[in-house]
Amino acid sequence: MTQPFSSLADFKAVLEQASGPDGSAIEAAQERNNQLTKPPGALGRLEDLAVWYAGWRGDATPRIENPQVVVFAGNHGVAARGVSAFPAEVTAQMVMNFQHGGAAINQLCATFGANLDVIALDLDTPTADFTAGPAMSEDEVVTALSTGWNAVDPAADLFVAGEMGIGNTTSGAAICAALFSGSAEDWVGRGTGVDDAGLALKARVVTEGLAANPQAKGNGLETLRCLGGRELAAMAGAIASARFHKIPVIIDGFICTAAAACLEKTCEGALDHTVAGHQSREAGHVQALQEIGKEPLLSMGLRLGEGSGAALAIGVLKAALDCHSGMATFAQAGVTDGG
Amino acid sequence: MTQPFSSLADFKAVLEQASGPDGSAIEAAQERNNQLTKPPGALGRLEDLAVWYAGWRGDATPRIENPQVVVFAGNHGVAARGVSAFPAEVTAQMVMNFQHGGAAINQLCATFGANLDVIALDLDTPTADFTAGPAMSEDEVVTALSTGWNAVDPAADLFVAGEMGIGNTTSGAAICAALFSGSAEDWVGRGTGVDDAGLALKARVVTEGLAANPQAKGNGLETLRCLGGRELAAMAGAIASARFHKIPVIIDGFICTAAAACLEKTCEGALDHTVAGHQSREAGHVQALQEIGKEPLLSMGLRLGEGSGAALAIGVLKAALDCHSGMATFAQAGVTDGG
Repeated sequence: MTQPFSSLADFKAVLEQASGPDGSAIEAAQERNNQLTKPPGALGRLEDLAVWYAGWRGDATPRIENPQVVVFAGNHGVAARGVSAFPAEVTAQMVMNFQHGGAAINQLCATFGANLDVIALDLDTPTADFTAGPAMSEDEVVTALSTGWNAVDPAADLFVAGEMGIGNTTSGAAICAALFSGSAEDWVGRGTGVDDAGLALKARVVTEGLAANPQAKGNGLETLRCLGGRELAAMAGAIASARFHKIPVIIDGFICTAAAACLEKTCEGALDHTVAGHQSREAGHVQALQEIGKEPLLSMGLRLGEGSGAALAIGVLKAALDCHSGMATFAQAGVTDGG
Repeated sequence: MTQPFSSLADFKAVLEQASGPDGSAIEAAQERNNQLTKPPGALGRLEDLAVWYAGWRGDATPRIENPQVVVFAGNHGVAARGVSAFPAEVTAQMVMNFQHGGAAINQLCATFGANLDVIALDLDTPTADFTAGPAMSEDEVVTALSTGWNAVDPAADLFVAGEMGIGNTTSGAAICAALFSGSAEDWVGRGTGVDDAGLALKARVVTEGLAANPQAKGNGLETLRCLGGRELAAMAGAIASARFHKIPVIIDGFICTAAAACLEKTCEGALDHTVAGHQSREAGHVQALQEIGKEPLLSMGLRLGEGSGAALAIGVLKAALDCHSGMATFAQAGVTDGG
């Protein structure tokens, strides 16, 4: 299928027309949950996750059998400013590593039975340096959104968008500063390991980016175009596409959260089909998750990207649905109900 | 094999003679970790888990392929005091449910590829009511320790001890109050769902139990005998046995932590081969984990028992080892090192 948009205005309309979860599936799942052989609430957050997932799938007893992870890779004009501890050619090298099965995300997908796709977006043509104006033209951002939209497998039953892009924590920080409150200093972090001087440079670059793109302030899709990158736009497109296909999404770390926040700022509720997988150690992530109202499932100190934090949470969601859909009821098991 | 002890004094000697992790495997695993295609430390706690696990397995690139979960079930004399929202016959009913595959732990084992064994310990003969004296004789507690010891499959590469026993959060609270500081009120919680009156009753029963067993105070194995139950003793025996077989252990919730704490109080370091899997919502668990110096991997609000919280963490440990042992090094992948 082809994406149902050819401009940012179209894409905004797609977000606004998105449907919600299935109320009767939620009700039936809640009813089932109350009858399972456990004290009420004893599975804690797993119970909430199961009912939430059932609603978005429109199925009171679903399982997760076909999760999909897509890693989008892009290069950033601001990387030339020296905002990363790694040179820009590492983006392409890591794409090769993904394709050869050697990266962390490959292993995590194997652990939890997820399919992995890797999509490199014009790595030889970095986006424009956003300190001199918009990172992308409207055509460029719509193309990247479309690539993300079309990357989602309609047969998947859970979706994770990951990313690789040298310099993209700087882009993520610029997006958060444009969408939320606070200064550049509040949103920049050490990314893949910059030192104090590198951190100060990132803050300067973000401040310059905000000044060069005043139209971005508070406008989700303009922020994505002006301060994002192709892989961030592709993640946003994929998250919207998953909603369209009734596929729940696990949000990954700081970059993915920044991309997702562009959707939420464009259309409140655009992330209702998502949960946050993992609290990254990247400085701005705690605040970014609070801004979009998500409490992370895990907090293991990762700050890698690639979708790794969200992939780690696939096991939690699988477990939640296996319990919900596989357990016996009190009546089936002949166990005396505590109520 | 048979357990190498026939008295509590023997068992204490076994704990004291236990060997530590393999220093050269730790060193080799750390060296490998430094070369993997990720920024240093970017996998956060997964890296620490992998190196820790490698040390206990004596293998620099191990995987988790054969995890074992054993649920031990026991009945408690104090259950007759009405400390649970469920009647005592539910212990046996839930054992049937485990055997028929209908409980939460069955589903979690399936999710993460763990083998599940269920061992019912003399359900028709509850332990003595500890408000009138010791719950078990030395013979009884040694028999339960032995059952736990022998339940561990020497071919397992990860072990989880779970439990089922109506009334056993009261036993767990009594153990914590005897081993650590604080009053009965500090350690009792709502278990499977008692109301305020039930909570007050639990505190009274624990206070009576402490008064009736003054010899338990601060003595790990006496506490286990006087205030524990057969399933708690079996868990303690199994955790010690896993150490003997070089099998790392994931500690479950409040009851399991209380049982494990009896080992740590008997011999400092007896839990070095363990990690805490999950922060239970049972009131005393935060403090109990602090007392044994363990930070839980997950916090999902479970308070079910059965080994469920620890089983949920199997996925995290598997993921950690899959990353550690499966990722390419910078040299293998031709990726430019950031350092």
